Amino acid sequence: MAAMRTQIVSGRVTPRFAGIPTFCRYPMLEAVDHEHGPVDWAIYGVPFDGGVTYRPGARFGPRAVRDASQYVKPYHLEHGVNVCEVLSLADAGDAPVRPYSIHETLDAVYNFARNLAHPETKLFAVGGDHSIAYANIKATWERRGKPKGGLALLHFDSHLDTVDEVWGEKWGHASVFRRAIDDGLIDSKRMLSVGLKGPLNTADDVTFARQRGITILTAEQWHRSSREGSGEVEAFVANLKGADTYLSFDIDVVDPAYAPGTGTPSIGGLTSAEVLRLLRSLKGANIVGADVVEVLPDRDVSQITALLAAHVIFEVLCLDAVRRT
Amino acid sequence: MAAMRTQIVSGRVTPRFAGIPTFCRYPMLEAVDHEHGPVDWAIYGVPFDGGVTYRPGARFGPRAVRDASQYVKPYHLEHGVNVCEVLSLADAGDAPVRPYSIHETLDAVYNFARNLAHPETKLFAVGGDHSIAYANIKATWERRGKPKGGLALLHFDSHLDTVDEVWGEKWGHASVFRRAIDDGLIDSKRMLSVGLKGPLNTADDVTFARQRGITILTAEQWHRSSREGSGEVEAFVANLKGADTYLSFDIDVVDPAYAPGTGTPSIGGLTSAEVLRLLRSLKGANIVGADVVEVLPDRDVSQITALLAAHVIFEVLCLDAVRRT
Amino acid sequence: MAAMRTQIVSGRVTPRFAGIPTFCRYPMLEAVDHEHGPVDWAIYGVPFDGGVTYRPGARFGPRAVRDASQYVKPYHLEHGVNVCEVLSLADAGDAPVRPYSIHETLDAVYNFARNLAHPETKLFAVGGDHSIAYANIKATWERRGKPKGGLALLHFDSHLDTVDEVWGEKWGHASVFRRAIDDGLIDSKRMLSVGLKGPLNTADDVTFARQRGITILTAEQWHRSSREGSGEVEAFVANLKGADTYLSFDIDVVDPAYAPGTGTPSIGGLTSAEVLRLLRSLKGANIVGADVVEVLPDRDVSQITALLAAHVIFEVLCLDAVRRT
Amino acid sequence: MAAMRTQIVSGRVTPRFAGIPTFCRYPMLEAVDHEHGPVDWAIYGVPFDGGVTYRPGARFGPRAVRDASQYVKPYHLEHGVNVCEVLSLADAGDAPVRPYSIHETLDAVYNFARNLAHPETKLFAVGGDHSIAYANIKATWERRGKPKGGLALLHFDSHLDTVDEVWGEKWGHASVFRRAIDDGLIDSKRMLSVGLKGPLNTADDVTFARQRGITILTAEQWHRSSREGSGEVEAFVANLKGADTYLSFDIDVVDPAYAPGTGTPSIGGLTSAEVLRLLRSLKGANIVGADVVEVLPDRDVSQITALLAAHVIFEVLCLDAVRRT
Amino acid sequence: MAAMRTQIVSGRVTPRFAGIPTFCRYPMLEAVDHEHGPVDWAIYGVPFDGGVTYRPGARFGPRAVRDASQYVKPYHLEHGVNVCEVLSLADAGDAPVRPYSIHETLDAVYNFARNLAHPETKLFAVGGDHSIAYANIKATWERRGKPKGGLALLHFDSHLDTVDEVWGEKWGHASVFRRAIDDGLIDSKRMLSVGLKGPLNTADDVTFARQRGITILTAEQWHRSSREGSGEVEAFVANLKGADTYLSFDIDVVDPAYAPGTGTPSIGGLTSAEVLRLLRSLKGANIVGADVVEVLPDRDVSQITALLAAHVIFEVLCLDAVRRT
Amino acid sequence: MAAMRTQIVSGRVTPRFAGIPTFCRYPMLEAVDHEHGPVDWAIYGVPFDGGVTYRPGARFGPRAVRDASQYVKPYHLEHGVNVCEVLSLADAGDAPVRPYSIHETLDAVYNFARNLAHPETKLFAVGGDHSIAYANIKATWERRGKPKGGLALLHFDSHLDTVDEVWGEKWGHASVFRRAIDDGLIDSKRMLSVGLKGPLNTADDVTFARQRGITILTAEQWHRSSREGSGEVEAFVANLKGADTYLSFDIDVVDPAYAPGTGTPSIGGLTSAEVLRLLRSLKGANIVGADVVEVLPDRDVSQITALLAAHVIFEVLCLDAVRRT
Repeated sequence: MAAMRTQIVSGRVTPRFAGIPTFCRYPMLEAVDHEHGPVDWAIYGVPFDGGVTYRPGARFGPRAVRDASQYVKPYHLEHGVNVCEVLSLADAGDAPVRPYSIHETLDAVYNFARNLAHPETKLFAVGGDHSIAYANIKATWERRGKPKGGLALLHFDSHLDTVDEVWGEKWGHASVFRRAIDDGLIDSKRMLSVGLKGPLNTADDVTFARQRGITILTAEQWHRSSREGSGEVEAFVANLKGADTYLSFDIDVVDPAYAPGTGTPSIGGLTSAEVLRLLRSLKGANIVGADVVEVLPDRDVSQITALLAAHVIFEVLCLDAVRRT
Repeated sequence: MAAMRTQIVSGRVTPRFAGIPTFCRYPMLEAVDHEHGPVDWAIYGVPFDGGVTYRPGARFGPRAVRDASQYVKPYHLEHGVNVCEVLSLADAGDAPVRPYSIHETLDAVYNFARNLAHPETKLFAVGGDHSIAYANIKATWERRGKPKGGLALLHFDSHLDTVDEVWGEKWGHASVFRRAIDDGLIDSKRMLSVGLKGPLNTADDVTFARQRGITILTAEQWHRSSREGSGEVEAFVANLKGADTYLSFDIDVVDPAYAPGTGTPSIGGLTSAEVLRLLRSLKGANIVGADVVEVLPDRDVSQITALLAAHVIFEVLCLDAVRRT
Repeated sequence: MAAMRTQIVSGRVTPRFAGIPTFCRYPMLEAVDHEHGPVDWAIYGVPFDGGVTYRPGARFGPRAVRDASQYVKPYHLEHGVNVCEVLSLADAGDAPVRPYSIHETLDAVYNFARNLAHPETKLFAVGGDHSIAYANIKATWERRGKPKGGLALLHFDSHLDTVDEVWGEKWGHASVFRRAIDDGLIDSKRMLSVGLKGPLNTADDVTFARQRGITILTAEQWHRSSREGSGEVEAFVANLKGADTYLSFDIDVVDPAYAPGTGTPSIGGLTSAEVLRLLRSLKGANIVGADVVEVLPDRDVSQITALLAAHVIFEVLCLDAVRRT
Repeated sequence: MAAMRTQIVSGRVTPRFAGIPTFCRYPMLEAVDHEHGPVDWAIYGVPFDGGVTYRPGARFGPRAVRDASQYVKPYHLEHGVNVCEVLSLADAGDAPVRPYSIHETLDAVYNFARNLAHPETKLFAVGGDHSIAYANIKATWERRGKPKGGLALLHFDSHLDTVDEVWGEKWGHASVFRRAIDDGLIDSKRMLSVGLKGPLNTADDVTFARQRGITILTAEQWHRSSREGSGEVEAFVANLKGADTYLSFDIDVVDPAYAPGTGTPSIGGLTSAEVLRLLRSLKGANIVGADVVEVLPDRDVSQITALLAAHVIFEVLCLDAVRRT
Repeated sequence: MAAMRTQIVSGRVTPRFAGIPTFCRYPMLEAVDHEHGPVDWAIYGVPFDGGVTYRPGARFGPRAVRDASQYVKPYHLEHGVNVCEVLSLADAGDAPVRPYSIHETLDAVYNFARNLAHPETKLFAVGGDHSIAYANIKATWERRGKPKGGLALLHFDSHLDTVDEVWGEKWGHASVFRRAIDDGLIDSKRMLSVGLKGPLNTADDVTFARQRGITILTAEQWHRSSREGSGEVEAFVANLKGADTYLSFDIDVVDPAYAPGTGTPSIGGLTSAEVLRLLRSLKGANIVGADVVEVLPDRDVSQITALLAAHVIFEVLCLDAVRRT
Repeated sequence: MAAMRTQIVSGRVTPRFAGIPTFCRYPMLEAVDHEHGPVDWAIYGVPFDGGVTYRPGARFGPRAVRDASQYVKPYHLEHGVNVCEVLSLADAGDAPVRPYSIHETLDAVYNFARNLAHPETKLFAVGGDHSIAYANIKATWERRGKPKGGLALLHFDSHLDTVDEVWGEKWGHASVFRRAIDDGLIDSKRMLSVGLKGPLNTADDVTFARQRGITILTAEQWHRSSREGSGEVEAFVANLKGADTYLSFDIDVVDPAYAPGTGTPSIGGLTSAEVLRLLRSLKGANIVGADVVEVLPDRDVSQITALLAAHVIFEVLCLDAVRRT
């Protein structure tokens, strides 16, 4: 079987600093031989940052993540799985965007995503700001047969992103899950949001989430949970019982020391070791689509933010690989 | 009551990247309407770094902290308090300084501070190097009626700052608490110093602190305490029984990964999540004055140090707000 | 007379690294005493970058220019004029913006600008991306009594900014002068554009400019002109015969070595000494409005771009001061 | 004819910050349709820095130049030529390298280059350190039919690179032209070296060049020539009478202010405007192969060095395009 | 006895920002008076990075570590020991290197090291890339009388460095312990490797280590061990029973947030506080030689990586000092 | 004779990135053999920045210049002189400083300098801020026999530095030449100041200079002079007729693009090529002492400012070497 998997160019043949970078050195989708059959995951960039409320620049995120991902190898030591032996993976390039219009961009990305590769291919979007997750979620939801009630959601973020509107605009990186829930793409009762931190505008900022039954684990709560080993995340995943689950990772859930390259950094976040532990604790979840967003290269330092984002891709793919083996 | 509080400009009206920055977008003291009555806290900058023993540049600290603080909103999720609903807050501008003379600067800052706003207004100084804390402590001590024995002190720092003199000079960032204790402004027996780390010149460097009964929790001890939940800090605060307490936060108590922008960085420090936990554990303390010092923007990275300092201001104000509610 | 001028705080009293920064330390418009009468120039920021075609981030430009301008003193050595003795100057804060909509932003800035201060006060806008110039030009044109045929224009830029539309959008930083000419605000026959450089998409990119009679001096032509002292710029200014003239300065006309902090840098530009020489050669022009745009702090280096922009403000103000004396 | 040229993706369709970057957005060689016939130039990277005598890191040069080149459009304003209408151009990816061995690397690059695309396709190598030029020169020389006496050479560099050996090694970035001359690939009597600057080890460092009749124009001499318009470069080119000429551009010929991202920077160099003027003054030369080398991204600032290198590629291609039209 | 120790210049006499920097301000070996007798440790730099598989630049590591080490004082607060009162210490300058040849370099470093100072002087090498550890290990092994079976090894690294060869080369930073074990310098059964993290090429990458009985504690395992206090490291050290032990510290074991300045960063690493705890837990080990490697200044941020490396030197020296007291 | 010159370690033996850096790799004064006789120049650092009026940090200047100077070789191509064959040169380490007191520092530096090496040895001070020049000038003046009327002065600076006092202090980087002239160390009538630029506080700022007959060539005047070849500088030097001349070079005379690493940058300055031309035009001057000051590494970019300063040292030494040959 492995012989039919898409292959990556070994760093022992082409050095990892050479060649035109694709995500984790996976082949371009257009270059994948027909004999491979459908790829399991298509990873694509969305170079758009028109949905931000503070600092723009995440449009350069996909390029930075591709660049930093060259050192991501395929074998996961802790899970004991080689992602390239289990999965066929491809870089599908960047989705079309319309820099001046968030509405046209979401349409364009959605249209790109829903037809991408084979219907069974799962979609991994690399932002760009968080607003673009809507398009990937919608395409994923459709490709999974429009499950009633919506997909379950594992959300890692410093913010809830359930604001109704900002400056009179209902689409943006602060309202992405408000829209996805309102449109039935995400089931708020099966949504876990980990990492909320930083001061809010008012106490009302969490009202919607509480009314809709979103499970919140603030950064402080997660740190306490982590110290005490109380296992809230594992329990949440177990309760999902293998339902179709989307994973959305906003890099600002990580502390600015580890991820300075983002637009609305907030102190008190997770370390990268904690991110790994958290993602690995999701073992068993049935991830059917994912994104990593809000990498802003102009604020990055020695590419550490982009490198972290590249590893998030890898860890999520491994969750799927582990589940299949 | 809240209607009488000073208001901040909402980021939903004026974007947080717009306008001339004041600390956390609080109004300028001179612009506060008379109807507000006295503000509860006046926050002011002290752009002075003539007291350093190593790298200068903290004179640009206040400007950097104001800039980074624009994303600090008013509602504290863990304490459940909106600082702007409980407290009237204002930015009082920068104290006058005399860049060539630490003695004249301390006099000028002290004179500025002791007469600032209303006598009941509490003072928050933003450095500048740690030497300037003396002036704010002295003004606070006087405004609180010169409590006999001095104020209690919660001190967070990589260094004790109780050196007698450096290069023949008795005033500077390494001797600030030696002077404050000698002058009766601080009660060494009610002083807690958290975060001491890094090699010392000699074993004698802690002698004064031990002789005077300062409670020391080194960084390593704090980390152990934190893992084990032994609660030394909470116990110390409880023992203060609401006495007038000054809080002094040297940003170098944080690890250089989180606070590279400082003049004498020392590895092995707290993470920003630990800083938050530590500050939140002070709940119940009666903070009557405070400072955050040693932010050096030229060594900062993507403003993460200044952002952290801005959150320290917020967390300390929330301690006061929580106590009042 | 000088006693009635707005005053700046001397750096010999308040050090230049202290205090909350306004443009060149000029007073806030709201703080200017009534006795001063109308200020001659109101300088305001426009923190908007929704009109860019490449790299965003210029929304942070006004804040960066204010910060870097603290070392700009008032006496111009070569012109022999003290700008603060001749002119009353004020910082009018930032215009309101709508980050998600270029149309709403242009409306909001225009409405802010046309009513700003006294009708005789001239307007200086600090961007933000070049798209915002339209609003300042329109307000200036109206405040000058809507001169028929439009204002004369001195334009310094690496690009012509006369594209009709980009990605289907007619408003943006590449089309600002196309719109201003089409709407009769600018007289293309009295428009000089200096500094065009870098490859174009097609030969047609200069067609509009040539058809409308815009005088173009490419960067290469200007360098040659400068070496040979052929005086094209001085001749153009002389031909304006004192007509109302708007000056628009896109910082990317300068070489990236001198102005790395911009969104569409193009090599082969002017040095800062050449910029000074060029601006000083405009002596005699009747500048009635101006802007400096496209400062992008996240790409800047040691604030040299913002410092240069601050000097552009000063040099333009001096042109007016010289003319009045 | 133009219809048969290779096309670039318009920035008006795919934004210039989107997609996987190739040199100047030219198509990948492997993706060029057969109908195009042979491409005129194949541009390829050589990610190797094992030949340096000081600071390594240029192995990341090709990737950085591709990234920075996305804003290089096809129409040359001063030459009046659209490079994509005249030439078929392609990115041929990176040559294979052997990071631990300069000898094996030169062999591998040479083997890659001599068989690349069609025999009439010209080769443009993007370094990497200057040592790699040898391989591209040798392949070019062979593909041109091994012209007796060797190719003419236009060399732009802060150093002569004619050292015999360094640390006992005869191959490296300081000896590349010594080897090429010794091996008959370059005709020293038709070699022009522009830009020599910085102190030398001894007076003997120029002996070889003088003995072999290399024409040297030091940076100081070029500056003087430029001021005085004495036309040495144009005269040299004219004397070549259209002979096959190789062009080698070491980015350190430019001043560190314009090209900080290089391994052996030397002050007193050309500005980028002077580089453009110099390259444009080569009009008429018959360029049959070229390289741009020594871009070291880790020392670059806001990508200005890589951007300059990208423009060098464009300017050289335009020289060829102009000659053909 | 203390009077005979080598002395450091007090920062209270010569400020720590003054003077030509040696490691931790220890005297140059050549300047140590004869009366001191043999120094206990000679610390030397190895400015070589020809063994890397990814990003070069560690050749500038020794200079950066010397520079950052100026603030490292001699008294260890937690161990209660003054390293300069117990040990005679000296900076022995840099070992000779041959930048173009890893084989010649290892020979040159080994020859330099084996004859350095007095036979009883212990050797501390500061890299440079990890390949250079081989030379220091070999010299140490010989100077300790070639203990049969080899030295015990405490290895801290994100990688095992037991690859057999890379690109056909058997010497390099990925194979250093493979060679040392094969040559009998290191006893694999008494080798502890802490910190392995990041994806591997294949599951086989750990086969050699497992076959040879190397004790591995991955980063994730160490974090768990640390949380649970299971004491694996202390137990390993206790089992060594005072055997001659070499300590090799690759800075990339630390997280990139704390050590961005390295060539193959890998997320999920230790914090600097954890590094201190880990090193202090080695108390009782008989360290007879050591290195700290892979500091790459061009990727560092505010020197935090180099500062951390300087503290690693100090902590290791203190382990020896503690053992002697 | 040359055999008696102090020697530098060849970069062909010890690579230029290896070893502990001294200025231009000249030997430490203390290590110079007696057989060399007195060295011709002693170069020493003055790590002091207590005299600044704006941004501090130049105390780290000497260390940065030493570091960047490692690539400065000895043979001057344009002058045709090998500085190490003509002169004996040594690095004398850093002068003692008292960071908290400018008065004590100037005394300490002066005392250090006046007794340094042999009475005939000339002194080159590397700052530190410009205030320290006073001490070197005074020591030079005394060592030259206290020439009546004072030394001639060639001064390159963006500022005149003839302010009487700042913030009530008469000693500082803005008043250094006021003091030196008042004290008879410098002859104002034989003082040339090149490079004045940037706005001044008032027209009076040049009054003192004009009253005392200082020859001023503003940056704009120098640029014009340079274009026109009017030779003012050469004429001034010729008029000195070989009188003892001190040269003081403030790095801020250079444009911030070339020298971002300085405390009071001012746009419109010289390029580095112009600096070289200017310094070379001093040929014939009898330089008996010199300094280069105001390098502030924390604002530098890829060390280009420090590299430029290192070349200023070299160029000045060559002026002396040329005069002797």
